[in-house]
Amino acid sequence: MGDFDVCFCNDGLVSRASAHVELTDRGLTLGDAVFETMRVRGGRVVDIDRHLERLAAACDCLGFLAVADSQALSAALESTRTANAVVEGVLRLTLTRGCGGRGLAPAQDLRPTVIVTASLLPVRSPGFRAVTASVTRRNEQSPLSRIKSTGYLDNILALREALSRGADDALLLNTGGRVACFSAANLFTRLGSVVMTPPLADGVMPGTVRRRMMEQLPVREASLTPAELVLADEIIATNSLGVRQLVALDGKALSSEPILFGQAQAIYDALT
Amino acid sequence: MGDFDVCFCNDGLVSRASAHVELTDRGLTLGDAVFETMRVRGGRVVDIDRHLERLAAACDCLGFLAVADSQALSAALESTRTANAVVEGVLRLTLTRGCGGRGLAPAQDLRPTVIVTASLLPVRSPGFRAVTASVTRRNEQSPLSRIKSTGYLDNILALREALSRGADDALLLNTGGRVACFSAANLFTRLGSVVMTPPLADGVMPGTVRRRMMEQLPVREASLTPAELVLADEIIATNSLGVRQLVALDGKALSSEPILFGQAQAIYDALT
Repeated sequence: MGDFDVCFCNDGLVSRASAHVELTDRGLTLGDAVFETMRVRGGRVVDIDRHLERLAAACDCLGFLAVADSQALSAALESTRTANAVVEGVLRLTLTRGCGGRGLAPAQDLRPTVIVTASLLPVRSPGFRAVTASVTRRNEQSPLSRIKSTGYLDNILALREALSRGADDALLLNTGGRVACFSAANLFTRLGSVVMTPPLADGVMPGTVRRRMMEQLPVREASLTPAELVLADEIIATNSLGVRQLVALDGKALSSEPILFGQAQAIYDALT
Repeated sequence: MGDFDVCFCNDGLVSRASAHVELTDRGLTLGDAVFETMRVRGGRVVDIDRHLERLAAACDCLGFLAVADSQALSAALESTRTANAVVEGVLRLTLTRGCGGRGLAPAQDLRPTVIVTASLLPVRSPGFRAVTASVTRRNEQSPLSRIKSTGYLDNILALREALSRGADDALLLNTGGRVACFSAANLFTRLGSVVMTPPLADGVMPGTVRRRMMEQLPVREASLTPAELVLADEIIATNSLGVRQLVALDGKALSSEPILFGQAQAIYDALT
């Protein structure tokens, strides 16, 4: 599966074969967990501070007890990276609320479960085709649409639909019918020289690369309808593992010059 | 935590201390899992066929590979019940899509993880107070609102809000502002002699007790606004663990005669 063998689980490094979580872990039983996926490049975890900041905001939203501070989480990431000698790859940090009994109400004294796993970089082409998911909508009226919980089942449903329709990824709309994101990436469009991306309020994950894009390019946050999206000269997808260019949406080719793609790629390549 | 010691995990019975799932289980990493909570009464799993039927529908919706057939799942439930000598209690059956690598797209050949755990019956009073959750809305535009996936984080957020406001449970509205359910129970109202419950299309779980209620009482399925709900003489909550009576909603007392509650309790008590 392209995974490295050594993981971090709660108290230290363990081999994947011996690493596990208990059956009562609320991450498993109730999806009561958050995570971050981070790129490792040249032996460094890219934009680690931004990832840990977003993770802390998610824990705060869900009322997770104070977890190991950022320094301890950084150390867990670095020890996992080092143990596997990852120079180019992916680290995933997962925090669950901890192990608890039956029922939704969390006990007061749960100790969060901390997991770090390392994987190889996925192999993918920069161009991709997407179709608009019809099977489900993204819930912009839930704060979960703006934090990275492990609740990816809507996205999985949308991706499964896209794959079954011969595409590579799904475009998700929100319950109000506005454009939200791809199954695991933010969306940016270019119309002439105007670059736009949906606002977080439309059910959008505050992506770390999205944030860098907004700092470095004149990006306009704007709600987009599917009808507006098809007018775009260019549409790209960004996430912590890179930038991709949409080459067809719902069967219609997009073939403008990859100006925005080039700009985004340069921003991504410069991240440290 | 009120849990019995013996669990079923994949291939057979294990003690809780030695039972676990792998770190790459998609139930843990992506919330890619479904479950059923079942009442055990007099040594029998109540309404087991309906539960397994609903689980099969959920697996079908998510495209889980054919899991152990109903007979095998029944056997896993019964062996767990017997091993713990559960006469009165709760069984939970969880199915995840299985263990897989990083990324949303499931591999083709995943073998689902099967878990059964047993717990004591929760102790709770029949009367409860609820407040309308403001923190989140239920997504009736996602099929997940109608299957019992492990994605309970919206419900957990709503319940946490309710508890922090001094109530016992949360009433959840859907994204269209209609009444959906409580944090882990269906809702029925009585206005005079008319009994109503929100339709599944409003983001409602097809509860097994809800279904029995609809078979045995003249229940009208009707979208309900919060304004209509406050006109009710009586509001009850049903799930596989029992029937409860709402005694106050958003601070306003409901004190009519518990006619519907009595009817629902009789239906619940007669389930086998």
